[in-house]
Amino acid sequence: MNTLTSQVGLYTDLYELTMAQAYFVSGKHEERAVFDYFFRTCPFQGGYTVFAGLEDLLNILKKFKYSKEDIAYLEKIGFRKDFLDWLSDFEVKADIYSVREGEIVFPNEPIVRVEGTLIETQLIETILLNYINFQSLIATKAARISYAAEGRVFADFGLRRAQGLGGIHASRAAVIGGASTSSNVYAGYHYDIPVTGTIAHSWIQSFDKEIDAFRAYAEINPDTTVLLVDTYDTLKSGMPNAIKIAKEMEEKGHKLLGVRLDSGDFAYLSKKVRKMLLDAGLDYVKILASNQLNEHVIKSLISQGAEIDAFGVGTDLVTAKGTPALDGVYKLSQLSDIPRMKISENVEKNTLPGRKKIYRFFDEEGKFYADGILLDYEENCADIQHAIYYQKKSSVKHMPYEEIQQQVMKNGEICAELPTAMEANKYFKQRFALLSDEHKRFLSPHIYKVGISTEIKDLKEKLFIERTKEISDSRL
Amino acid sequence: MNTLTSQVGLYTDLYELTMAQAYFVSGKHEERAVFDYFFRTCPFQGGYTVFAGLEDLLNILKKFKYSKEDIAYLEKIGFRKDFLDWLSDFEVKADIYSVREGEIVFPNEPIVRVEGTLIETQLIETILLNYINFQSLIATKAARISYAAEGRVFADFGLRRAQGLGGIHASRAAVIGGASTSSNVYAGYHYDIPVTGTIAHSWIQSFDKEIDAFRAYAEINPDTTVLLVDTYDTLKSGMPNAIKIAKEMEEKGHKLLGVRLDSGDFAYLSKKVRKMLLDAGLDYVKILASNQLNEHVIKSLISQGAEIDAFGVGTDLVTAKGTPALDGVYKLSQLSDIPRMKISENVEKNTLPGRKKIYRFFDEEGKFYADGILLDYEENCADIQHAIYYQKKSSVKHMPYEEIQQQVMKNGEICAELPTAMEANKYFKQRFALLSDEHKRFLSPHIYKVGISTEIKDLKEKLFIERTKEISDSRL
Repeated sequence: MNTLTSQVGLYTDLYELTMAQAYFVSGKHEERAVFDYFFRTCPFQGGYTVFAGLEDLLNILKKFKYSKEDIAYLEKIGFRKDFLDWLSDFEVKADIYSVREGEIVFPNEPIVRVEGTLIETQLIETILLNYINFQSLIATKAARISYAAEGRVFADFGLRRAQGLGGIHASRAAVIGGASTSSNVYAGYHYDIPVTGTIAHSWIQSFDKEIDAFRAYAEINPDTTVLLVDTYDTLKSGMPNAIKIAKEMEEKGHKLLGVRLDSGDFAYLSKKVRKMLLDAGLDYVKILASNQLNEHVIKSLISQGAEIDAFGVGTDLVTAKGTPALDGVYKLSQLSDIPRMKISENVEKNTLPGRKKIYRFFDEEGKFYADGILLDYEENCADIQHAIYYQKKSSVKHMPYEEIQQQVMKNGEICAELPTAMEANKYFKQRFALLSDEHKRFLSPHIYKVGISTEIKDLKEKLFIERTKEISDSRL
Repeated sequence: MNTLTSQVGLYTDLYELTMAQAYFVSGKHEERAVFDYFFRTCPFQGGYTVFAGLEDLLNILKKFKYSKEDIAYLEKIGFRKDFLDWLSDFEVKADIYSVREGEIVFPNEPIVRVEGTLIETQLIETILLNYINFQSLIATKAARISYAAEGRVFADFGLRRAQGLGGIHASRAAVIGGASTSSNVYAGYHYDIPVTGTIAHSWIQSFDKEIDAFRAYAEINPDTTVLLVDTYDTLKSGMPNAIKIAKEMEEKGHKLLGVRLDSGDFAYLSKKVRKMLLDAGLDYVKILASNQLNEHVIKSLISQGAEIDAFGVGTDLVTAKGTPALDGVYKLSQLSDIPRMKISENVEKNTLPGRKKIYRFFDEEGKFYADGILLDYEENCADIQHAIYYQKKSSVKHMPYEEIQQQVMKNGEICAELPTAMEANKYFKQRFALLSDEHKRFLSPHIYKVGISTEIKDLKEKLFIERTKEISDSRL
């Protein structure tokens, strides 16, 4: 999809370019590098994350180039002529390995692995993080809302409160995580997502009387009318008028599709509204609710027996209220075949060196048991250990497993079939069914096991010792 | 600025289009309408909001049209041929009145007023909300960070964690609220914002030794080097190496610009780092800090005497951590010269009817005293009252005032000079200086007075009585 249509190569943090220039000048730019994308914490204090954003990323990488205008701008802000000459021919020729969109993923796993020249793998860092962090975040929020809704459908209504143009990717990701439709026509067009929407308060207000507004809309849209009933008074005005219109529609052989509540207490109102509908013989009319909903409110409404058939979820869905960013990072793990590692004051920020792959192990019921991170040449491992507390180990001997990454870009060309948003949602649902309920809990979910192989542990220790020796030597 | 380059008319909630079609079929579409944009709550539990996003909005409205492709899509999803024929010639011809970008604004004020045909004012609702809500949100966050930083500069580093393409507008809005530079090259190009950035951990990791990485970068960038000192160990490795390099640079007649801390405790580390720099005679080397910063962390660091000269603020700035959306709405206030009002179960959601303007009253010191909302034909008012609790009144008799809106679009053409982001920041600073400190406090700030004129109060009461009478009549 094609929102960034030009200047794509400028969609980056400046330091990617200053580093690229320095790699170029140092003659290091064609060294072969491996970078890993991973995140450190599941958003919303949850137990899982839904991976999304890959299709948009791969498509935009094919446009990641520098036009004459871009080059002129970079020259103006101080870049060197020799580097810019080189940059003007730049295109992405990388190899990329990734899990599928809709996959359930966990902290510290190298979900996306990028291999290529040092300069190209560096230049695409920002756009990769920007695209993957955000869509995975929103897909996860949507998955939580879907889980809370217990089979009821929900629509994405968020564009008006979305973070600017972020609304475009938000609607796509919302569908991957479980929204069945979106109000966002732009996303509908570009991602082939079903769109929904009927009327706002302004339609009602534009008539002298509420019932005239209802009648006019129903006449124009005899099969798709959902009446917004709270413009003046839900129970005293909106509902009596909606019922009159529904009866008029019946006489003409049509059916009112639904009524929408947009303010007030939904548990209280929806029960009253359902009773009014049933008393009027309108058992087929759906009750929709929209206003400041999220997974927690929906869960609470359902537990109180609210009579709501479908939800419209806006702001909190598309802005990921609670955790507005996924903390994904992109770290160098190998250069010219030599594993690289970053050491941090915070041990949990030490990175995993080497070219790696992810195995997902399954328990005897066929559910996800644990994920193991292995070096790419390892065939299998008997047990996996916690990446920091090595004493925590789990045996995975003889367990069935899947390697969950596949190659998706080869030499700059997309080499895997990429699912649409709706297809990715289908895949998500299959995978989500294999995740145990205790990982889905909103409050203090059970932490899913992710471990590293003994080979990676040994490599980490070796590099750590080398680095600390170098530091103490240099202080002598 | 030109990110949405095509299909702009699809950048809307579907219901704007279904209502537009229904207005068209009902023959109401050319009635003259007035809509108000306002928000209900200042974000971050703060005492003010910084208005932003106008330039981008007005520019995109000029592209808000429907191509043949768009029309074909709308036909496919069920719109009527006669409406689509009409829509294919659609362009925005509205009149828009707005406060300036960088203006300090408050809840319930009709900050932007849109006048035009009912259909055009309706169709642009979503894009207006999307653009203004987000940029005003981020400009406000930036203003808070700037206030906390007490004169120290800060840079926007957020693109990698921004909500997708929202990062573009975020960087612009961050500058309006006070960021002095941005890492976002795309925004730098399009909005003429200064860009900054030097190196990441990957640059350091790409060399066997940290000092070689430092030296290589400093040689290529003798006047702009900021060394990232935490890749392996800030105090034991990064700083000793940075000092060696700074000394080498001095010998060649250059100066190290700064060191950047990106992990660990900044109060503790920055004091140690300053002492190391001063002991080495490097009093000119700046200390930068970046990692999970926001206004609260910055305020706390400064209160503990942290030795930080400049901050890099990323995620929390561009995603507006705390309040990821401004709750702005867009409500019909007049149609064919008749004032309109929405009544809600929640009284604070009742809207203000009629075509209105905003006066800002100044106290004897020349500071903002209160804002008054008047009907457009009122010359002045002696006192203003709370929009719900009418008994709360303030006299504004003989107080100097400004009308803070101006016309910015006339018959679809931009008719005001629109400031750049940097100019809007200048205006913001002038206005912010006129806002008393008690409104700027982070914790429970003093609520700024916004009141309505007696004429508006009387109009509200009249419409409310009419509407409730109609409801009770219809139930007889």
